[in-house]
Amino acid sequence: MAERGVALNPEEGIQILERTPAVLDAWFRGLDDAWLEANEGAETFSPRDVLGHLIHGERTDWMPRLRLIREFGDTRPFEPFDRTGFLEHIHGRPVGDLLDEFARLRADNLAELATHPLDAAALAVRGRHPALGSVTVGQLLATWVTHDLNHLGQIARVMARRQTEAVGPWREYLGILEWKRAGG
Amino acid sequence: MAERGVALNPEEGIQILERTPAVLDAWFRGLDDAWLEANEGAETFSPRDVLGHLIHGERTDWMPRLRLIREFGDTRPFEPFDRTGFLEHIHGRPVGDLLDEFARLRADNLAELATHPLDAAALAVRGRHPALGSVTVGQLLATWVTHDLNHLGQIARVMARRQTEAVGPWREYLGILEWKRAGG
Repeated sequence: MAERGVALNPEEGIQILERTPAVLDAWFRGLDDAWLEANEGAETFSPRDVLGHLIHGERTDWMPRLRLIREFGDTRPFEPFDRTGFLEHIHGRPVGDLLDEFARLRADNLAELATHPLDAAALAVRGRHPALGSVTVGQLLATWVTHDLNHLGQIARVMARRQTEAVGPWREYLGILEWKRAGG
Repeated sequence: MAERGVALNPEEGIQILERTPAVLDAWFRGLDDAWLEANEGAETFSPRDVLGHLIHGERTDWMPRLRLIREFGDTRPFEPFDRTGFLEHIHGRPVGDLLDEFARLRADNLAELATHPLDAAALAVRGRHPALGSVTVGQLLATWVTHDLNHLGQIARVMARRQTEAVGPWREYLGILEWKRAGG
């Protein structure tokens, strides 16, 4: 168990990780493309892109990096994560299919995570990020959780901004319309 | 049907309104209080507070205002909405109970909304906001939708910020950790 304070309690983190697929399912399944394909301009993610990016993270980022740390510590840097590596993978596929894939991948990854020790000593083990340098297992786990939340917030913002003009004078009460873009 | 562009298509808006209770249910039910009670400091909302605030909006804000416009146009201003009017109502109640209440109230309000005309003429009818002045039915509907999204984004942000330190050097990749607080 991680200490309180700076570290994230892994059990709490897993509660978020296991819920994100169902949150997105409730939000996206059956929703019009007008919402799913909306974005904030060139090179920005639509809600559907975010789902693709999360799928790509399950396949290439979080658990592969944890496995690498477990095997090689910080002697071998992580593969760089391709923020847009999902584009071909999701092309032309129905959103229900993508939601199913994300749920399946996340469940598999959490089942594997449950086989790893997550006590204080395990969380302190260090790996090497190709750009950020030395990082710990605990930071990787906290980032996995926070990355989900980052993108849930991004989806809300992208959808909200469609109504920037439509809300008329209420705009000043809706802080989300002023949030800056988040990184991927 | 509203024109494309500035106005929100009411059918698209209703798609979001009818999904928000299920999104929150998937996110909050069974979740630790460490997540549900987290906030951003004094006078800020926790995720549980946001749920209370959304319940209060269903009871006193959106449909009551639409009814008032239908009956009195802009000759009678709306009742001011009490942003923290929910506090006593949610005190001590389990989150599952609050989720059930929100889902029930939202479903009832959308059933009533379906009995109102929402063509271009109906959306252009004006009411009077006590602080913002003249507003239209279309703006009220767009604000109801965007208010949901605003608070979904807020919940993601409040939960993300618990890990501001725990993510270590990944912080710079997580834009949500820098978003300013949104109004209620």
